[in-house]
Amino acid sequence: MNPTKWQELVEVKRQRLLQAIPRDWIIPPSPNSNVLDIPASCAVLSPLELEITNTSDVSVLLSNVASSKWTSLDVTRAFCKRAAIAHQLTNCLTEIFFEPALESAAKLDDHLKRTGTPLGPLHGLPVSLKDQYCVKGVETSMGYASWLGVIAEDDAAMVKILRDSGAIPYVRTNVPQTLMWTETHNNVFGRTVNPYNRSLTPGGSSGGEAALLAMRGSILGIGTDVGGSSRVPAHFCGIYGFKPSYHRLPTAGMVNSLEGQDSIATCVGPLSTSLSGIKVLMKASLDSRPWNLDPYVIRKPWDEDAYALKEHGEGKSLCFGIMYDDETLEPHPPVKRALEMTKKAVEAAGHSVIEWKPYKNAEIYAVTRSIWLADGGADYKSAISASGEPMINSMKPDADPSEVPYFRKPREPLSAYQLWQLHAKKRQLRKDHLDRWQATASQTGTGRPIDALICPVAPYVAVPHGQTRSAVYTLIWNALDYPALVLPVTTVDPSLDVKPPMHEYRNCADQCLYKLYDPEVFKGAPVGVQLVTQTQEEEALLAIGAIVDEALKAM
Amino acid sequence: MNPTKWQELVEVKRQRLLQAIPRDWIIPPSPNSNVLDIPASCAVLSPLELEITNTSDVSVLLSNVASSKWTSLDVTRAFCKRAAIAHQLTNCLTEIFFEPALESAAKLDDHLKRTGTPLGPLHGLPVSLKDQYCVKGVETSMGYASWLGVIAEDDAAMVKILRDSGAIPYVRTNVPQTLMWTETHNNVFGRTVNPYNRSLTPGGSSGGEAALLAMRGSILGIGTDVGGSSRVPAHFCGIYGFKPSYHRLPTAGMVNSLEGQDSIATCVGPLSTSLSGIKVLMKASLDSRPWNLDPYVIRKPWDEDAYALKEHGEGKSLCFGIMYDDETLEPHPPVKRALEMTKKAVEAAGHSVIEWKPYKNAEIYAVTRSIWLADGGADYKSAISASGEPMINSMKPDADPSEVPYFRKPREPLSAYQLWQLHAKKRQLRKDHLDRWQATASQTGTGRPIDALICPVAPYVAVPHGQTRSAVYTLIWNALDYPALVLPVTTVDPSLDVKPPMHEYRNCADQCLYKLYDPEVFKGAPVGVQLVTQTQEEEALLAIGAIVDEALKAM
Repeated sequence: MNPTKWQELVEVKRQRLLQAIPRDWIIPPSPNSNVLDIPASCAVLSPLELEITNTSDVSVLLSNVASSKWTSLDVTRAFCKRAAIAHQLTNCLTEIFFEPALESAAKLDDHLKRTGTPLGPLHGLPVSLKDQYCVKGVETSMGYASWLGVIAEDDAAMVKILRDSGAIPYVRTNVPQTLMWTETHNNVFGRTVNPYNRSLTPGGSSGGEAALLAMRGSILGIGTDVGGSSRVPAHFCGIYGFKPSYHRLPTAGMVNSLEGQDSIATCVGPLSTSLSGIKVLMKASLDSRPWNLDPYVIRKPWDEDAYALKEHGEGKSLCFGIMYDDETLEPHPPVKRALEMTKKAVEAAGHSVIEWKPYKNAEIYAVTRSIWLADGGADYKSAISASGEPMINSMKPDADPSEVPYFRKPREPLSAYQLWQLHAKKRQLRKDHLDRWQATASQTGTGRPIDALICPVAPYVAVPHGQTRSAVYTLIWNALDYPALVLPVTTVDPSLDVKPPMHEYRNCADQCLYKLYDPEVFKGAPVGVQLVTQTQEEEALLAIGAIVDEALKAM
Repeated sequence: MNPTKWQELVEVKRQRLLQAIPRDWIIPPSPNSNVLDIPASCAVLSPLELEITNTSDVSVLLSNVASSKWTSLDVTRAFCKRAAIAHQLTNCLTEIFFEPALESAAKLDDHLKRTGTPLGPLHGLPVSLKDQYCVKGVETSMGYASWLGVIAEDDAAMVKILRDSGAIPYVRTNVPQTLMWTETHNNVFGRTVNPYNRSLTPGGSSGGEAALLAMRGSILGIGTDVGGSSRVPAHFCGIYGFKPSYHRLPTAGMVNSLEGQDSIATCVGPLSTSLSGIKVLMKASLDSRPWNLDPYVIRKPWDEDAYALKEHGEGKSLCFGIMYDDETLEPHPPVKRALEMTKKAVEAAGHSVIEWKPYKNAEIYAVTRSIWLADGGADYKSAISASGEPMINSMKPDADPSEVPYFRKPREPLSAYQLWQLHAKKRQLRKDHLDRWQATASQTGTGRPIDALICPVAPYVAVPHGQTRSAVYTLIWNALDYPALVLPVTTVDPSLDVKPPMHEYRNCADQCLYKLYDPEVFKGAPVGVQLVTQTQEEEALLAIGAIVDEALKAM
């Protein structure tokens, strides 16, 4: 394909996407920076549809559908409408399949009417999907012009699980080119913006999901996370985001970057406007025997005892570790404040908090980045080669094409043997970190190691487009394979989050970061915290997350 | 180190090993080919020590120690003696630490006397270890002259678990140079031979373990398995051998070949003279929370429901698949007979058997071999470089040094990107194979897919030294990550296992294999079968294994 050709294809694709939105749902452009209120004011949604989509708690929505208070058709239409509006304001969607979704909803309503029983644990729940999850009959480009025209022959394993559980996929959402960014922009669909402030990024790579959820155009979205891709967008957009351990949920039938880079595995990463959304998704998926669909999935069903915190003192008098700073990038004031709020909240709820000093973090970052860049960029080059589309080297809107941020700088390709040495090093670092975690048992006073770790999601909140850096505060848990959960805590308040006096910079990135902070730029942007437990403690983390979430809400 | 130097070091090491055997336990050389009876006739062991070491059932031994019928000291001394004899006849040991073992035994006896309670589920059980498991204070060379002189500072995770469970490590056992052979010979310790017929190999890489166990110099040994290393030796030596799924048992603190080759993970591979030995080891290890010692271990304790076959009709009317032949290497007559015996036995016990045709086996073999050889031999070269010891290219006693068997031929080193493509291909093959297994549900008549697969362990029984080939019948389950269990079935009987008429050869290796078969050469050699279940079905496989084992014994 020559350069003109790919641009033509992209133009056709964008038009097709817009045409998938019914005319009545088209709204005028908005001059606003914050567009969160527009769904309520634009007169596209009925009062019932607003009531439905303003529901943030997935368990409430499920129970209202199960009890026939709301039909699945009403619910699905409401979210389709609001997603269409969200897209017009934030450019969050990549694929729209409202028609089959509404048909599925009607069938589910019929099923419930006929049998009196929901089809499954997610009966009637509209679910949005990141542009990696193949849906039978739908084009799957993952933001690559080169991949346009490929129609999936089958649903991805996660999509099968969702359908079998009664959920209704209705849209797919935007991603960055290559996926390996915490912003969202590509040659096919362009840039997704943050509905809290459209001059800020919603994060990435599940940035389309996060923008859509913040707009309440979805209540539960299925993202992915290999370095922070579900958690950074959740933090930037004020929602809940989760990264389970490797291979608890199936990635079979998904398209991806760096296929075969199995050392730091891509995880299915749910995002939701409620913690209940993440919990019901995890429980439904793990109860569906996902190992029968994907040979890499661990044969480990949802563990109700673990969720009851049987191994964590039944959730009473927990002891948390707290890491304020990774000693490479000092977090901005609102991030620090969210940590302090969380500490106070859990202490007020009867738990204790001890400090966790970062441990070999810089070494873990270095190994992780070396593994990701081990192919010398061959995977990315191969993905764009068919169309001739350019590589996006910077996420800055006005970027000099030659400018490449430090964490994306191409490296010499490694040999398989060199890669093995990195794997071995990573294995040792994981062992060291585990031993360190276990050793906290001597300080907690509970007889156990810390029950969970509280730490920043990123050193900043949503930044202006092009200003994100290497996602070290999240990627560390991918490298170590610890599950990690993001909870929304607060929003930036310039009166509280004042710029600190200049300090000695630890490194270049730390200096840039200090300079970047301006309370007025970030005003009103959401701030989250990250909670982390040991490998394959998904159930315990979600339960501890609920304890922290309640404690925060009680403050 | 120069060539003379490494040979001197090796000589010193071999002398030190022999000197670790008490003088009274030294026996005269034997001219016999089959040396299995010598422990009973050599007058080193007392009648009680013979009774103890002739016990093959680990649960019987454990109960006799727990009930104080036998002291742990008596048991340990008996196995030390018999191991010393086994070593003199088969060259199976690499490290001898009888003294600390006897001290541990005395302490355990004291504990039991004082408290009335065994220390743990393996109280008083002597356990042999493959020369990969570090033992604090013991040299760990893994058969490399270059590694001589390295003393372990800590016990490997598995050794910790054994000690905490009350087991007593007392010897380590021989391996092939590089581990990546199914025979056992290296520059430091030389060649281990098969006690059934010393002109045959005991297999490898856990060949020292298998020879020791066949001699009853151990009742439970901890080997490893990355391609058949616990199963081929078990088959060749008439014992039980097990390969669990990746990361169920901890490999932390172990030395290994191809460190960082994480795609096809090395598994802890127990071998025993009884199936109960493997079961108690698995249960004790999984109940010990091994994920607290090794971050790669799956957080999945021993599952008693799975062992009760809750998901396999409670073990009633099982349906087995049987694969007679992988369509690349036709099995020898005794291997085919063992399969037929197994089929008849399970049918007589009320189960059914359907045929399983090999599925993409050749593709799986090719990908596996390409992954193992991806470093172009860099790992092996690095391991021998310090001493100047030669690479062993062939296991033949009279090998031309330039002769390299086809499955060991060096390849061009691959790039990390090329390795990733192999990982991606392997992932697809695993998915294809899973779908194929699941699809058998339409043929079994049970409503379930086949409960387990019966297949050869190798196309041959123990072969003359230097005659083993690529371990395709075992490595396939490593590549697919299915647990696999070897049960002993019979021994070669020239009157039953006659050489078949010549057939059309499928390939060179198949032709060599046909020519190799001579019933008189293999007379009396043990024959096993392999049982396979789905990923992480260890408990179910051990339970199904017990059903098959009983059925075979009942024939």
